[in-house]
Amino acid sequence: MKKPAVEKAIEHLRQRGLAAAQKKAGRETKEGLVSAYIHPGNRIGVLIEVNCETDFVARHEEFQAFVKDLALQIAASHPLYVRREDIQAGVIEKERSIYAGQCKEMGKPEAAWPKIIEGKLEKYYQESCLLEQAFIKDPAISIQDLLNQKIAKIGENMAIRRFTRYQLGLE
Amino acid sequence: MKKPAVEKAIEHLRQRGLAAAQKKAGRETKEGLVSAYIHPGNRIGVLIEVNCETDFVARHEEFQAFVKDLALQIAASHPLYVRREDIQAGVIEKERSIYAGQCKEMGKPEAAWPKIIEGKLEKYYQESCLLEQAFIKDPAISIQDLLNQKIAKIGENMAIRRFTRYQLGLE
Repeated sequence: MKKPAVEKAIEHLRQRGLAAAQKKAGRETKEGLVSAYIHPGNRIGVLIEVNCETDFVARHEEFQAFVKDLALQIAASHPLYVRREDIQAGVIEKERSIYAGQCKEMGKPEAAWPKIIEGKLEKYYQESCLLEQAFIKDPAISIQDLLNQKIAKIGENMAIRRFTRYQLGLE
Repeated sequence: MKKPAVEKAIEHLRQRGLAAAQKKAGRETKEGLVSAYIHPGNRIGVLIEVNCETDFVARHEEFQAFVKDLALQIAASHPLYVRREDIQAGVIEKERSIYAGQCKEMGKPEAAWPKIIEGKLEKYYQESCLLEQAFIKDPAISIQDLLNQKIAKIGENMAIRRFTRYQLGLE
């Protein structure tokens, strides 16, 4: 199917966004915001720190709205890590061995296991890493895409430094 | 100095509070609140989970005010742990060896070291453990005292389950 013009334009803008974001990626981010979101009913809460380069941008309405969107995303989608590099090696090994067990259980030919395992691992990353999750307010883009867009639009490097999510009675 | 009557009365009440609290200490706390405090300026934020026995108490104004006070306390006083049992053994060993080094540096006789080290460790607990900190709104009592008072007054067991404190740019 041929892509409609508007979709192409968005894609082009997004690619430009990424290019603009990459140019700024080396810059130090020492300012930013600590923000929180408490879901109505007080059973789920999120604390987040997002960094930018200047206090000026930290006080910018669009940056603050971005941080709020991230906190909402975390409350709703329950990521465990910011990025896949944050996952301890032991966790990935455990996931791999679970997937291998599933392959065996389902009688998959052993030659096919590595590809199946890698596929399942990719899915695990997409579910558990905030930057790889689909943005709940626009599932066509990932949180990494959203971050790139904001960097390109606001014109400063930004980084999601850390978050904590509490759910009453859960780990 | 002789204690004034009002102080004695408070002490008595506090002892009663503790007795009442201890009677309830075995009860399971599965309900409660997840709450947050963001300090004006968005550079310090706290996320906290406090448990109680019933959803009824979780919705109680006094319980909610207590949780809010705890979040404020954490923002202001920067505890690292809820209780001393939460401190990893390695951390305590490191503190001990720092204190021993200080004793040596100051030329204290070795026979006196154990007492000095234990004294400094007690101080470390009082600063780093939320339950042992002096309550910022009433430094005559500790957070553990405050918790006991709330348990006695509200009549349910309660537990400070966990907290996270973010300060912009700090660990």
